[in-house]
Amino acid sequence: MFAVDPVNHQLDEQIQHKIDQKTKPLGALGELESLAMQIARVQLGDTFDPTAQLAINKPAMLVFAGDHGIAKHGVSIAPSEVTKQMVMNFASGGAAVNVFCRQMGLKLEVIDCGMLTPWDHPSVTNHRLGSGTQAIHQQPAMDRQTVEQGFLFARDAVQRHFDAGCNFIALGEMGIGNTSPASAIMAAMLHLDVKECVGRGTGIDDESLSIKRELLSQAMDLHQENISDPMNVLACLGGFEIVQMTGAILAAAEKKMLVVIDGFIATSAALVAVALQENCKDYLIYAHQSDEQGHQKMLQSLQASPLLSLGLRLGEGTGAALSLPIVQAAVNFYNEMASFEHAGVSNVV
Amino acid sequence: MFAVDPVNHQLDEQIQHKIDQKTKPLGALGELESLAMQIARVQLGDTFDPTAQLAINKPAMLVFAGDHGIAKHGVSIAPSEVTKQMVMNFASGGAAVNVFCRQMGLKLEVIDCGMLTPWDHPSVTNHRLGSGTQAIHQQPAMDRQTVEQGFLFARDAVQRHFDAGCNFIALGEMGIGNTSPASAIMAAMLHLDVKECVGRGTGIDDESLSIKRELLSQAMDLHQENISDPMNVLACLGGFEIVQMTGAILAAAEKKMLVVIDGFIATSAALVAVALQENCKDYLIYAHQSDEQGHQKMLQSLQASPLLSLGLRLGEGTGAALSLPIVQAAVNFYNEMASFEHAGVSNVV
Repeated sequence: MFAVDPVNHQLDEQIQHKIDQKTKPLGALGELESLAMQIARVQLGDTFDPTAQLAINKPAMLVFAGDHGIAKHGVSIAPSEVTKQMVMNFASGGAAVNVFCRQMGLKLEVIDCGMLTPWDHPSVTNHRLGSGTQAIHQQPAMDRQTVEQGFLFARDAVQRHFDAGCNFIALGEMGIGNTSPASAIMAAMLHLDVKECVGRGTGIDDESLSIKRELLSQAMDLHQENISDPMNVLACLGGFEIVQMTGAILAAAEKKMLVVIDGFIATSAALVAVALQENCKDYLIYAHQSDEQGHQKMLQSLQASPLLSLGLRLGEGTGAALSLPIVQAAVNFYNEMASFEHAGVSNVV
Repeated sequence: MFAVDPVNHQLDEQIQHKIDQKTKPLGALGELESLAMQIARVQLGDTFDPTAQLAINKPAMLVFAGDHGIAKHGVSIAPSEVTKQMVMNFASGGAAVNVFCRQMGLKLEVIDCGMLTPWDHPSVTNHRLGSGTQAIHQQPAMDRQTVEQGFLFARDAVQRHFDAGCNFIALGEMGIGNTSPASAIMAAMLHLDVKECVGRGTGIDDESLSIKRELLSQAMDLHQENISDPMNVLACLGGFEIVQMTGAILAAAEKKMLVVIDGFIATSAALVAVALQENCKDYLIYAHQSDEQGHQKMLQSLQASPLLSLGLRLGEGTGAALSLPIVQAAVNFYNEMASFEHAGVSNVV
């Protein structure tokens, strides 16, 4: 459904030379230098123009909301109703992701991917795939056509922002219970025992953690014959918001937009997207190392090194929003810093 | 010379309650929550007003430049002349710290604390304490009166920004060779073998590293009788920019301003400032975990957990500038996020 081109590595040497001529010791801007290289590969085209500028244009935050059948079986601190309450909170501007998007200049779009009950509101996009998924320890979360419909919805959402001039999409989510499907997806994609992939989510106690482990083990046993391809992984184990995040990654990478991955849930979507189209990797920026057990393993498998580690465990895209100034700083030093020659500084390195 | 008041802990419970009533799981904003608590303690006064707002006003970056006698003995990748070349680069807006200050809205002041030769320029403040320090492996860097004069200069600089409405000072530095005095100060303040405190600075090779270790061991032997108090540590082992950074920390904390500490050099100044006035600690925010060996140990001794870890090894205040949006995010979530009650979200935690 999507065809993602690899980035161009032909200009790497010239880009690196430009970075190395900036008035600083070699490599002294650390991860900002790798980030500038990545963005330059995405944005600079086929011919090196030493005056070409990198840019983040009309950055957008898409927050995908959905509910999960497994949530009523005791795997979360909160009931599924809180998903919708938080979507209402997003719509009135009071949640953490609202605060950070306002601060960082990200345009926020909230997408109902399938909450328990719909909420008709002008600032919430209706991309509903159902009224919550099925409980994955009892049956598949959804069928394959639903996954495909989710991808189409995601493509539409990305297209709207692309058409408005956006080249930078951050992905966030809200879905009570969604660390459960994310852990199951991680187990399926990385061929791990799901117990190694399960954590406390937003803060469940020992009893709930033990239930979560047990139900997810049941889910993996139930679906083990049917999860050999990534689309089936999403259908059997996914969530409506995870499906649409996966589709958004693919759609944005297809359009050569930068895509910022937030925390544990978004990273599980990235695992699936990269399995479907490996070239996606070139467009992904990882915002935040979450406290959730297992996040580190997913990041390692994606060779990702997140920009921030602030102990966040909130989701919503909060880490992605907070990382925007870091990404902008990489763009700005590439564009604006003087070279040794221009500044009359001895290049002694 | 300075008297720093402790912050007020009487309102901790009410501040924490306000944070806990925000629409998020308990503690889910991680380090931003500790930061909001710290800023609230500094700014909220004696009576809790639930509508009181935190604020970062007119944030400023002070970049202190100085030269070091030890630099001509083979401890750095660059000659001392580069300090002034970089100050010229700051004045024309082309260095990394310029780029990041422009992006983050920090007002930048560059202060000549004692480069090898002066440079008369309207955008460089003349707070010169000499033409480079003495080589600390041969004699004291400076005398005690010079340290005191440095503190007076720093107080003036901070006062100017305070008078302009600033409540947030970030500290950066430029001084070829200044990881050497910073390592020596660290060894003296933490009673460590200086060899454990020495690193590669901006990237010296094995031979220079071995010279650096040897000269700094000589310096510690030479001054061991005279470094029992922090002012003498600065006089024997310091640098003009490190002295003025120390003074700036004390002066800003005295005025209840937030002070952001950048990397290795600024942290060595923080060690001395906290030894002189322990209450300084309450006002300090640590921006960046540098790659420099030893930085971790200093941070541990200060019970500091830096906000960023981006592999920077540039100094100039770059890490401090990059951390401003994170600090602003802590202020903003405290001010702007809805409470469970206000947003109609079930508080299930």
